[in-house]
Amino acid sequence: MRIAIGIEYDGSSYSGWQKQKSGNTIQDHVEKALTKVANSLVMIVCAGRTDAGVHALEQIAHFDVNVIRDLRAWVMGANTYLPRDIRILWAKHVAENFHARYCAIARYYRYVIRNRPYRSAFLHTQETWYYRPLDVDIMQSGANFLVGKHDFSSFRARHCQSKSPVRMMYLIDVNREGENIHIDLVANAFLHHMVRNITAVLIKIGSRQKPPEWALQILLAKDRQAGDVTALPFGLYLVGIYYPKQFEMQNHPMFARLPNLGS
Amino acid sequence: MRIAIGIEYDGSSYSGWQKQKSGNTIQDHVEKALTKVANSLVMIVCAGRTDAGVHALEQIAHFDVNVIRDLRAWVMGANTYLPRDIRILWAKHVAENFHARYCAIARYYRYVIRNRPYRSAFLHTQETWYYRPLDVDIMQSGANFLVGKHDFSSFRARHCQSKSPVRMMYLIDVNREGENIHIDLVANAFLHHMVRNITAVLIKIGSRQKPPEWALQILLAKDRQAGDVTALPFGLYLVGIYYPKQFEMQNHPMFARLPNLGS
Repeated sequence: MRIAIGIEYDGSSYSGWQKQKSGNTIQDHVEKALTKVANSLVMIVCAGRTDAGVHALEQIAHFDVNVIRDLRAWVMGANTYLPRDIRILWAKHVAENFHARYCAIARYYRYVIRNRPYRSAFLHTQETWYYRPLDVDIMQSGANFLVGKHDFSSFRARHCQSKSPVRMMYLIDVNREGENIHIDLVANAFLHHMVRNITAVLIKIGSRQKPPEWALQILLAKDRQAGDVTALPFGLYLVGIYYPKQFEMQNHPMFARLPNLGS
Repeated sequence: MRIAIGIEYDGSSYSGWQKQKSGNTIQDHVEKALTKVANSLVMIVCAGRTDAGVHALEQIAHFDVNVIRDLRAWVMGANTYLPRDIRILWAKHVAENFHARYCAIARYYRYVIRNRPYRSAFLHTQETWYYRPLDVDIMQSGANFLVGKHDFSSFRARHCQSKSPVRMMYLIDVNREGENIHIDLVANAFLHHMVRNITAVLIKIGSRQKPPEWALQILLAKDRQAGDVTALPFGLYLVGIYYPKQFEMQNHPMFARLPNLGS
């Protein structure tokens, strides 16, 4: 039978999601914990493979098992074996045709910037500090050029393995809450480093080192050299994944703002 | 000449404010850094000595020096010698009769509780987790019994060294922001463990294990045995210190809500 799980993690101490020989990735830890609960090898597939240092408020993954366990056992049991900065939030039975990665039709990421003149004593790996004042209105103007279906070649990492550089960006929202700036992005999928590359460009625009139109110039260049800046991983959170209604997943309320996602 | 400084710190890794032989306290680190900047021994006095694991958004301290330095040097210079979870925010010249501790006539502390059924992957030493649902309205009803001038013997640690157990509690505000509950407390001064002891009682009340009147019973007992619960240090923040107008300190806006503080 197939089971889906929601996972929250503080990525500060890990080498990203994807399994590595070092064993210090989120996937390694979660598979090891689920394997103990199942008492047989469990392998998982996630919706969005996050980089080293990147966090998740709700990553989603699935796995297949033959053993019968109460759904609570997958959550509570696995959590007893997991480091405390990785938590399984819920588990649910899903149809055999559910696939955490291929069935996901939208992803929601948030980037958090602490914007004040002096560095904070707190949260060095949970947010990224920027000292020059950032103007969220002009950041939003720059961001607006990136909304829609575009070739995002200029915003993908050189080693990105995706076949196509085209992505549908549904929404970019830039907001200030006190000293913090939140950049919320929803797309069908993201290229490697895409959020961090977009964020770095919006920071240059928000601090008036570049005009909002710079975002458009970079986009149109379809060349990574055009906007060669990347923000740190520490402010980045995978917040939610959207699946078509048929899979009966609890989708994040943010996705309700996207009427044309379909089902 | 006398200089006042504002200090922000994440207390997670430290044995509290007060100097110890171990050397791992906030005071030890700040004095060592200022001594390097001054090139002569600097000793500091703070407004509120925080316990191990307790944080500060704005601790205030003063020190006397004979050397002339630009005020920026005390901030930027000392910060280069400090661990990154202790930051000096500002420095200013103050009158010789300014004393960070004795001139302070009110202190503002905040306690942060993450209130949700499952433990978070994040911020284990920056907030305290509580799994049962907390009702902030009945917490507020309990808190209201503690506002005013009272003998807080029931809420002081056994080893508290204060001469008098009487304190003037100006305000206790209990609010929910999403999954977080904030308890804001302003008093002329606090006894040892007083905020953590009050918080633990409000948690019992908010989770309906005790009625709001329990806070009053404990207060009237004037006996620590009456309410023998203490919340963890990790959710506790020293947010601000209030000084009379004559000292020209930038007081936290919270204090503007207390019209009778005087000057």
